[in-house]
Amino acid sequence: MSLVIVGSVAFDTIRTPWGDRERIVGGSGTYCSLAASFFTRPRVVGVVGRDFPRKTIAFLRSRGIDLAGLKVKAGKTFHWEGKYGNDPNLRTTLRTDLNVFADFRPEVPPAYRGSRIVYLANLNPEHHEFVLRQFRRPAVVAMDTIRLWIETKREALLRELGRSTIFFANDEEARLITGETNLILAGRALAGLGPSLVVLKKGEHGALVFGRDFVFGALAHPCEHVIDPTGAGDSFAGGFLGHLDRSRALTARDVRRAAVYGSVMASFAIEDFGIGRFLALDRDLVEARFRQFRRLTAF
Amino acid sequence: MSLVIVGSVAFDTIRTPWGDRERIVGGSGTYCSLAASFFTRPRVVGVVGRDFPRKTIAFLRSRGIDLAGLKVKAGKTFHWEGKYGNDPNLRTTLRTDLNVFADFRPEVPPAYRGSRIVYLANLNPEHHEFVLRQFRRPAVVAMDTIRLWIETKREALLRELGRSTIFFANDEEARLITGETNLILAGRALAGLGPSLVVLKKGEHGALVFGRDFVFGALAHPCEHVIDPTGAGDSFAGGFLGHLDRSRALTARDVRRAAVYGSVMASFAIEDFGIGRFLALDRDLVEARFRQFRRLTAF
Repeated sequence: MSLVIVGSVAFDTIRTPWGDRERIVGGSGTYCSLAASFFTRPRVVGVVGRDFPRKTIAFLRSRGIDLAGLKVKAGKTFHWEGKYGNDPNLRTTLRTDLNVFADFRPEVPPAYRGSRIVYLANLNPEHHEFVLRQFRRPAVVAMDTIRLWIETKREALLRELGRSTIFFANDEEARLITGETNLILAGRALAGLGPSLVVLKKGEHGALVFGRDFVFGALAHPCEHVIDPTGAGDSFAGGFLGHLDRSRALTARDVRRAAVYGSVMASFAIEDFGIGRFLALDRDLVEARFRQFRRLTAF
Repeated sequence: MSLVIVGSVAFDTIRTPWGDRERIVGGSGTYCSLAASFFTRPRVVGVVGRDFPRKTIAFLRSRGIDLAGLKVKAGKTFHWEGKYGNDPNLRTTLRTDLNVFADFRPEVPPAYRGSRIVYLANLNPEHHEFVLRQFRRPAVVAMDTIRLWIETKREALLRELGRSTIFFANDEEARLITGETNLILAGRALAGLGPSLVVLKKGEHGALVFGRDFVFGALAHPCEHVIDPTGAGDSFAGGFLGHLDRSRALTARDVRRAAVYGSVMASFAIEDFGIGRFLALDRDLVEARFRQFRRLTAF
């Protein structure tokens, strides 16, 4: 079992209609590795400043997360500030302080180089090459992206899509990349750009997975009160890839179940601010919610 | 088996980015009864003008639809004109000519009065009482509504919700009635107003069914090219109620399958302008698509 997650480990300031939180722990690498830790022992490549709390490091370790690839550098940790309105699918970035993340050149520890699954979480696509050539021959290269790279690094993004195995995108990103309004056409168009699997995340409406010869639809957990949508997509990827790493296979059945585990982990992430919900989570609760998804969709 | 559908039988003029159609046959009663006709022999209560085409009447009869309750009156048939943009979930009404529908007081033929299921398709809620007291004791009273009645007849609408068994609403209507942005809260709030079942239709994102002790989520068929979304909701209701009439029961299992049949019939309706897709449909195609829904959601 070997899943490497290359992503940000950060502070987030979150403003929602039901409360604010200042400089709480977040970041794509944090959410993704925490979600994956309920399935496997994920490895993290990232960077934080000396201001990053030791007790969070200790908590990540206690979840079985391998932090050999997490550098601590002089300076401040990446900080993002965002605001949500009543529609949890829409957010506004108020501020981004890259800090030690600005010149982050991900270095992969020797022990990680034979890993089976590599996930590049919203990394600048121009830096993929640098990361990927540090691995021997990963079976799965998964990636997602953000609006910024779609708009400013389109060529590199399309090139990297061409050699990825799994691409995670939300509905807005899928439409921006392909120019297709219809999500089914957008999903198929993305699959045509290279990835064997395209996972379209639709927030409260669940996710669609486009494989070579199947389409799978996963619902979102019917959540009555979304506290903080931050990290939902990264937690989805963590559950998805964590399950794939645990199952050691990529059959349609594995992928379908991976998508449901992705939805499960995203559904927990949004129930509290930041990574709060993961502090009180265990495998039994994860499996119980997986069974709830069965009841939600069985007919 | 006895399902009565009280609704409009009309002409629609449809404008979409991929073509227009002038005065084609539409109406909630038409779509709903056609969709239901693949499961049962629905009965229609409605009114048309003398300009309504005989060949459509003949087609509806050929589908086993009972038209004893469809009045032909001197004057013109109800005509609606609407326009869709690239997002098929959003439409603008350009024109409404009520014509013979203006003073429509639905009269229920004696042969219909013992019917088991009565569906009031977007009728003015102030007229429900007049219709319902013509029935002996229907096991199921189903209804939906439109923005107009939510905004102008709120009190009557809430009263009628209180005595309905099944309420169909789309996401916008659910939010308008309850004031809840979150669809899960909105669905539960609607269920709290009286109906045993609330069916929230979300267009391309499927539907959510709120029962007394379960929630069920049905996906939408992954449609690559929506030709004309008109009638999708009415076709959903037709498939849903047609299946419930056929199954003669209201267990959670029946309701779950009803919701999938609703999605199936809606998915056909949007594949052509007006009722075009129903002209070339048969039960085998309906069952084949039902099986596709199983493959879409199985994990």
